[in-house]
Amino acid sequence: MLAKEGKKLLKNKIGREVPYYIEGIGELRPYAGPFSFQPVGRRFGREISQALPGESKLLDSIEKAVIETGLKDGMTISFHHHLREGDYILNMVLDTIFKMGIKNLTLAPSSLTEVHRPVIEHIKNGVVTKIITSGVRGPLAEAISNGILDTPIIIRSHGGRARSIEAGDSQIDVAFLGAPCCDEYGNANGHNGQSFCGSLGYAMVDAQYANKVVLITDNLVPYPNVPASILQTDVDYIVKVDAIGDPNGIVSGATRYTKNPRELLIAKYAASAIEASGYFVPGFSIQCGTGGASLAVARFIREKMIAKDMKASFALGGITGQFVEMQKEGLISKLYDTQSFDLAAAKSIGENPNHYDISASFYANPHNKGCAVNKLDIVLLSALEVDTNFNVNVITGSDGVIRGASGGHCDTAAGAKLAMIVAPLIRGRIPTIVERVNTVITPGETIDVVVTDRGIAVNPLRQDLLERFTNAKLPVFTIEELKEKAEKITGMPKPIEYEDKIVGIVEYRDGSIIDVIRQVK
Amino acid sequence: MLAKEGKKLLKNKIGREVPYYIEGIGELRPYAGPFSFQPVGRRFGREISQALPGESKLLDSIEKAVIETGLKDGMTISFHHHLREGDYILNMVLDTIFKMGIKNLTLAPSSLTEVHRPVIEHIKNGVVTKIITSGVRGPLAEAISNGILDTPIIIRSHGGRARSIEAGDSQIDVAFLGAPCCDEYGNANGHNGQSFCGSLGYAMVDAQYANKVVLITDNLVPYPNVPASILQTDVDYIVKVDAIGDPNGIVSGATRYTKNPRELLIAKYAASAIEASGYFVPGFSIQCGTGGASLAVARFIREKMIAKDMKASFALGGITGQFVEMQKEGLISKLYDTQSFDLAAAKSIGENPNHYDISASFYANPHNKGCAVNKLDIVLLSALEVDTNFNVNVITGSDGVIRGASGGHCDTAAGAKLAMIVAPLIRGRIPTIVERVNTVITPGETIDVVVTDRGIAVNPLRQDLLERFTNAKLPVFTIEELKEKAEKITGMPKPIEYEDKIVGIVEYRDGSIIDVIRQVK
Repeated sequence: MLAKEGKKLLKNKIGREVPYYIEGIGELRPYAGPFSFQPVGRRFGREISQALPGESKLLDSIEKAVIETGLKDGMTISFHHHLREGDYILNMVLDTIFKMGIKNLTLAPSSLTEVHRPVIEHIKNGVVTKIITSGVRGPLAEAISNGILDTPIIIRSHGGRARSIEAGDSQIDVAFLGAPCCDEYGNANGHNGQSFCGSLGYAMVDAQYANKVVLITDNLVPYPNVPASILQTDVDYIVKVDAIGDPNGIVSGATRYTKNPRELLIAKYAASAIEASGYFVPGFSIQCGTGGASLAVARFIREKMIAKDMKASFALGGITGQFVEMQKEGLISKLYDTQSFDLAAAKSIGENPNHYDISASFYANPHNKGCAVNKLDIVLLSALEVDTNFNVNVITGSDGVIRGASGGHCDTAAGAKLAMIVAPLIRGRIPTIVERVNTVITPGETIDVVVTDRGIAVNPLRQDLLERFTNAKLPVFTIEELKEKAEKITGMPKPIEYEDKIVGIVEYRDGSIIDVIRQVK
Repeated sequence: MLAKEGKKLLKNKIGREVPYYIEGIGELRPYAGPFSFQPVGRRFGREISQALPGESKLLDSIEKAVIETGLKDGMTISFHHHLREGDYILNMVLDTIFKMGIKNLTLAPSSLTEVHRPVIEHIKNGVVTKIITSGVRGPLAEAISNGILDTPIIIRSHGGRARSIEAGDSQIDVAFLGAPCCDEYGNANGHNGQSFCGSLGYAMVDAQYANKVVLITDNLVPYPNVPASILQTDVDYIVKVDAIGDPNGIVSGATRYTKNPRELLIAKYAASAIEASGYFVPGFSIQCGTGGASLAVARFIREKMIAKDMKASFALGGITGQFVEMQKEGLISKLYDTQSFDLAAAKSIGENPNHYDISASFYANPHNKGCAVNKLDIVLLSALEVDTNFNVNVITGSDGVIRGASGGHCDTAAGAKLAMIVAPLIRGRIPTIVERVNTVITPGETIDVVVTDRGIAVNPLRQDLLERFTNAKLPVFTIEELKEKAEKITGMPKPIEYEDKIVGIVEYRDGSIIDVIRQVK
């Protein structure tokens, strides 16, 4: 059979050559459109066990937890990345596992950051042989791009990760979850304690589906700890440690308002486009990123809301202090938070009764009975590159090296009525609008508008928006015209040279393969 | 094989003759001790589906919902009983199904009440052929006790029901769930709207595991409806109707303090026993019932707490206004509510940030990773009968007819450190303490103390408690002595005469069969 013959490639719906089969991963399904795949089968069910009254879940070391969970060679372990660059958990656990001699694990955290560079050593020493995650940065990302793993890394969106866990595509044997505030029976939240991070949205999925669940905390509080994002009914063991993370790396301070004139120009165009789009109506919903331009858009939108006395129904996603303020001002009714982006948001979730943490499945899983991105009107998204088919790359840099994350990019683009990319036309000498992006994370058919400092391009699929923007006298160009503008300044970018080896496969949120990442030369 | 030969009986651990096999139900496992069964297998996973952005879940009639869910002959449907005697949902849905000609359904509501007497007609007309629930009262209960069903009704505790649903023993094809407050995408809670009932604890399990979930509401609110006990990610369809229930039947007013001297005497003994038990310490936890004696105990306990400046960590279970008041006074830290018992509790859940609704699985499922009853110190429980082995009957009356519910009785008895029955020694001319109860709901090995108006009996398994109560000069007797006291007044009760036909089987919380109910003569 073709599928078993090795790395045979096939062009998927957006013309990317993707494999049918990869040794160590199995058969793959090519991307065929954002909603073309009809899911089959049943939701994964973990093994049922019994918890007796009087039994303690507290263990006094990570090593004991590893022993109790029965972790063995070849299993899959997971982590959340809510502690971001301050995370101590993943490295602590891998160090322990290494010392215990367990090998050949699949590492399936919700994301990886620069702080996880010790994973390189654990790949070299055989502890980690596969990685499934949303993104990677720093030295580990470079090592992966340079081919350190025999089996390609699998990149999943936040919604896609939740989907894969619920579908049993990725079965997590043991989840090691950092808990900023936890009681002795496993009720945990992320908004109290020295290592508070706000929402525990990614961890909620692991807690609900992993076969064994270990909470690691530096803040054990009296039972019952409520409200709880992770429930006792999902937790096997709890380990108390001195610190689960470095508070300086966990949450950043308040996000500053950009003074960069180019970002302000992008934001101005974007806010005007939103206003003209037909979606800026009472009760609208919105998700913004944390980039300077995105935050500036939110600020301009706020002014327009006040001027028109208009209220939003909810803001979604990574929540920032800016949205927290707007909620307090009465401009946004509710905040749905799967990841708190800054100090103000991380604190607010425990204090503000209209600010809720939601699981990554609630946020964006395309195969539950209706995720939150489906109710989203407007999403502002970033891009490293956009091509003339509106495909977006947010994962590989201009050198072809992995340096970002899939995140909720393709999820929100698929769900929102208006998916808007905000990005500078060029960065340094590198154009943002190109003929063909290095790596596709989000398919162009789900992107409606690209807003740059040199003009706005509308996806030809959205003639309605084109007409509205033209009537509003916005600086509208074709995507090809924007590309030419960029190339006039930067010249044609030299293609990146890759080896044949596939070092990463990019899953679309429905589990199909939208692209591959190859080893850099 | 013996198991397939028919209604062969075997004595289970407590000496009750129970069948190995019942036609229409299958093989059965006899009760063998409260924690003897080691669960195997995996948690049930419902079929995975896809929800598209822009798709509406709103349907304009129950009939359309029945069509859309694909409900067919032979399937299982479920309901919750949070609307109690005010419930319109179950009858409305069965009437619709009858008109549509669908037959041979298994009815699996969390409980049935007097208001559900029309089910009798739907048994006669072939719509309902099996029933699985926690309890039944009124004419329907009488009809069942008189053998109206060919297949015995299965009685499950609240924890056992959650367990069976999660284990896939009972697979719910369609759940029709009344929602007092609901948005267009299925986020629902029970504490707002004209038909508010407080906690939606039983319904939460159905929403998470039923293959198709239909919410029926009379109070559609703007999206997003938060906080929500049932989430959009679990809901397929929503039907708006004029009324889901009669408010007069849904919540009762404030529960009155008993003036009955016998109940006050029981309560006084019970409170003293609790005080002497060693479990009345700072941070203790408690669950009480709604009977006059139970409520009076809570009142006496409150006084002792104030006197000793002692605070409880949590109160669990059916929550009453009394506990709500004690929480407000600072005497109880948190309220875990799986069913709000009165008006004050039903309202409080939406207003009091320390009052949480919990699912029936969180409450009492013995086969998740740790349910709340495992953390319970003290539970006060009622009884229709207690036998000299401390086995308790709360389901069949002195005439052998079904007139109650299993509820959380055996769950809390198994979980709590101190499981205390409070009951009058005799009711009218009927003794409470007997040689052999009609029907065992809760095995005696999980009951620690029986408190009556004529004295206290301690289970011989609890010599520690016996010593404490004796030292505290409480009126302690053996259970046999209490039985004799009762019989001196009432005489020996005449045994109930039954037919051979088994009309009900009583499941223990772990899924084993603890007893059967036979047709009355």
